[in-house]
Amino acid sequence: MAFSLDSIAQALGARLEGDAALQITGASEPALCGAQDLALAMDPKYAEGLPKGKAQAAILWDGADWQGLNLKAALFVGRPRLAMAHLSKIFDPGPQIAPGIHPSAVVDPSARIGPGAAIGPLTVIGVNARIGANARIVGQATIAEEAVIGDDALICSGVRIGARVRIGDRVILQPGVALGGDGFAFVTPEKSSVEQVRETLGDRVEVSNAAWTRLHSLGTVEIGDDVEIGANSTVDRGTIRATKIGRGTKIDNLVQVGHNVEIGEDCMLCGLVGVAGSTRIGNRVVLAGQVGVNDNIFIGDDVVAGGASKIFTNVPAGRVILGYPAIKMTTHNEIYKALRRLPRILRDVSALKKAVSLPDQSN
Amino acid sequence: MAFSLDSIAQALGARLEGDAALQITGASEPALCGAQDLALAMDPKYAEGLPKGKAQAAILWDGADWQGLNLKAALFVGRPRLAMAHLSKIFDPGPQIAPGIHPSAVVDPSARIGPGAAIGPLTVIGVNARIGANARIVGQATIAEEAVIGDDALICSGVRIGARVRIGDRVILQPGVALGGDGFAFVTPEKSSVEQVRETLGDRVEVSNAAWTRLHSLGTVEIGDDVEIGANSTVDRGTIRATKIGRGTKIDNLVQVGHNVEIGEDCMLCGLVGVAGSTRIGNRVVLAGQVGVNDNIFIGDDVVAGGASKIFTNVPAGRVILGYPAIKMTTHNEIYKALRRLPRILRDVSALKKAVSLPDQSN
Amino acid sequence: MAFSLDSIAQALGARLEGDAALQITGASEPALCGAQDLALAMDPKYAEGLPKGKAQAAILWDGADWQGLNLKAALFVGRPRLAMAHLSKIFDPGPQIAPGIHPSAVVDPSARIGPGAAIGPLTVIGVNARIGANARIVGQATIAEEAVIGDDALICSGVRIGARVRIGDRVILQPGVALGGDGFAFVTPEKSSVEQVRETLGDRVEVSNAAWTRLHSLGTVEIGDDVEIGANSTVDRGTIRATKIGRGTKIDNLVQVGHNVEIGEDCMLCGLVGVAGSTRIGNRVVLAGQVGVNDNIFIGDDVVAGGASKIFTNVPAGRVILGYPAIKMTTHNEIYKALRRLPRILRDVSALKKAVSLPDQSN
Repeated sequence: MAFSLDSIAQALGARLEGDAALQITGASEPALCGAQDLALAMDPKYAEGLPKGKAQAAILWDGADWQGLNLKAALFVGRPRLAMAHLSKIFDPGPQIAPGIHPSAVVDPSARIGPGAAIGPLTVIGVNARIGANARIVGQATIAEEAVIGDDALICSGVRIGARVRIGDRVILQPGVALGGDGFAFVTPEKSSVEQVRETLGDRVEVSNAAWTRLHSLGTVEIGDDVEIGANSTVDRGTIRATKIGRGTKIDNLVQVGHNVEIGEDCMLCGLVGVAGSTRIGNRVVLAGQVGVNDNIFIGDDVVAGGASKIFTNVPAGRVILGYPAIKMTTHNEIYKALRRLPRILRDVSALKKAVSLPDQSN
Repeated sequence: MAFSLDSIAQALGARLEGDAALQITGASEPALCGAQDLALAMDPKYAEGLPKGKAQAAILWDGADWQGLNLKAALFVGRPRLAMAHLSKIFDPGPQIAPGIHPSAVVDPSARIGPGAAIGPLTVIGVNARIGANARIVGQATIAEEAVIGDDALICSGVRIGARVRIGDRVILQPGVALGGDGFAFVTPEKSSVEQVRETLGDRVEVSNAAWTRLHSLGTVEIGDDVEIGANSTVDRGTIRATKIGRGTKIDNLVQVGHNVEIGEDCMLCGLVGVAGSTRIGNRVVLAGQVGVNDNIFIGDDVVAGGASKIFTNVPAGRVILGYPAIKMTTHNEIYKALRRLPRILRDVSALKKAVSLPDQSN
Repeated sequence: MAFSLDSIAQALGARLEGDAALQITGASEPALCGAQDLALAMDPKYAEGLPKGKAQAAILWDGADWQGLNLKAALFVGRPRLAMAHLSKIFDPGPQIAPGIHPSAVVDPSARIGPGAAIGPLTVIGVNARIGANARIVGQATIAEEAVIGDDALICSGVRIGARVRIGDRVILQPGVALGGDGFAFVTPEKSSVEQVRETLGDRVEVSNAAWTRLHSLGTVEIGDDVEIGANSTVDRGTIRATKIGRGTKIDNLVQVGHNVEIGEDCMLCGLVGVAGSTRIGNRVVLAGQVGVNDNIFIGDDVVAGGASKIFTNVPAGRVILGYPAIKMTTHNEIYKALRRLPRILRDVSALKKAVSLPDQSN
């Protein structure tokens, strides 16, 4: 599909110089561009690739001499990465799904399918499920009984959506996402070893767990509008209430969100993050890859947790944290610098003790 | 479905006061209760919500004045969380699966399906597979050739069960579980860099890996009775013998269990735990979220490992551990406290060296 | 299927002593062997099991007296683990897939299926997809539009392969692998809290993220020949170019590879490893279980990262690393030893300060 450079400039809010009528069919790195591709060269270092490709137009840095670069036109944008986002939307073909319901899908007669929705092959849709208008279900997915999918949602292949789960408008679920598995909640007849450790912080367990009795999950999962969840991630249903993910929050691949968790709006959870049961997370929180969050704690708004932080206790709003256990990033970095000098400090202390004739207990 | 309060009291082993004939259809938080819901208010702080809801009966704390709370009846229990577990079982509707074999399922004629089993849509059951009595397979699952599923098992949507895998009675597999993938085992013609590092603990690799030759997995996976495995978790088959998970063990979402691993009975493995190949884990062991366990080690009975512990070496029975590398929890906490004072210690040591006129080597 | 011991010896490059015509149908641990199994007893300690089983032939250690062990024949090999690999290949029955295309598969008429390929039940193959010669697709998998699968590939049940993804020859994808999910890339209109933290390393966030705008993934995924990827692992498509995994690289279960990542040849990524976006990894790199790799960094050839290492910065070729943050393994171990002595050091420093009459600031 081709767009005029002029229409692309408008979609990007970009300033256009040169031939506004150029037809553009894609975007690429400068060296890989065909004649109808828009070259992405927002930085002078990327411009070196232009002569290797065939681009006639490029997005350039402010003040760039597009004519000197042998281009017929150029776009200039304020925030290149944001322009990239708008551009990528224009050229994304999205998954191919034929309109209507594929004949191989197994759709319960009681399910309500919104106008314009596309249901791919071998999908199962259960009793009283509701699919929003223009929703796209790529195929081989499960929408269990009484689940609700919002308008314009995109459900990729192999997604599992459990009974009574509710999903907002424009939500994107990548392949293999599992929403509404049962929560991981078990109880022992007597106090368990975990309960004992939490009380005593002791180094030996004095009690022995009897068999685990299952706490069934009667709650569900609620996913707000504009949420995206990455491939093979999982969100468990709540025990009584719903596990909730707020509007606009983005979740990467292989992330685990436990039962009863409530995550606010516009958060970002990167790959392999785990959030244990009943924890509440505020708005605009960022958890980098492999971060772990304890159960039953509270993470305030705007918290940023660096890669692999392990968060054991409440975190106040706006704090930047890092480490295992996670602490303020600046404190972590100070301790870490000291740590690298620790072997030397040990030698110093030994020398000091000799100098002042103290017995050397530490060796 | 409605139950008399009397019958619920019996199922919970609870003491009942008030109207035993009240009909109850669900359980909920006090503020969210309808007139036929049982309010969960085991602690006085939860009782505040009662006037906001419509509950006529509640589970209350010992000594609570249910009449003063405008209730018609109340239940009193010894261990509230255990009562919750029993209660949740009563009201869990479970997944809807029509009885019998759905016509869209692809079932090999040689497969044996037990009486009362329900096989959901688009399930594949292979040659000589056996499905136990009253087992429920929600749909779109794979039961490969010669796999055996026990009685009363619940296999959720999209579960993958490999050839010859054996699963006990009452096992629950959440959506997307994959049992019986091939073990991750490769060998190089000459000593590999990993073998070298294990021998020398050196900081540079002197050998370079040639191509990896695959060790095929001829073993299988055996899952004991009453095991539950969470969404998208994976258990690999053994090389020669079976990878084994013992009776009553509970495994959360996104957990990886490597080839040849043997896990005992009544263990609990939380989300994103990884257990590397050939490790043996005793009974009643608890591994918190994101714990990692090295290959070829042994974890004794009743060990409790705190969140994100990384276990590199054998752990004796009953020990409580934490950290990376995991050590006794009390030792970890002592070191950690000292660590927070480390930047100050560095300044002290500098001051001391000046005071005794030692050269300051550490700066 | 039975093989003569002679033919097995040839496949293994083993020296044979005794009855070369013995018919062998499997391989097992000595104590579990039937009469036609080859016993695996490469070490004298394993030989103890021989009398408990019925093996007539075994692989033994150099110099072993096979006649004294009551065997009719024995094999001797140079590197036992490599012999095991060759042996396991001989006896692996592999998954059962009927030849041709199962009638329940949904195959677009435009798709090209190579000669000898086997397509299992309920598989979906999209527009213009290409399946290589003798490729095996176990069933219930997705091969989206224009995807390309190489010759002799093995695609296990429930694998999701996105549009335009390209997969080499002899690739093995374990159950539930998801290739070609969209990259996790979002941008805010103004500078985000993450950008601020990266610039300042501060301990509080001063800016608040507005809504995230999605960077669509126009690139694809390219998997080289002889790659294996474990159950439920995920590889995201690139933004503009392809995410690439080089020839011969092996990836374990539940591994996340982010968008634009390039991984070299013959690498090994163990379970639950996460590699964040746009990072490049050299050849023959080994990342142990739960290792995390930051975005936009470079890992040199032959690097070995120990279990759960968290890699935040570039790593030069050949280095062996460990820890959070990951540093040279030898340095890590030295610091770690010092750390265990830290509580004592604190007491020493207090005593020293008293001895030289310095005020004790650190308490």
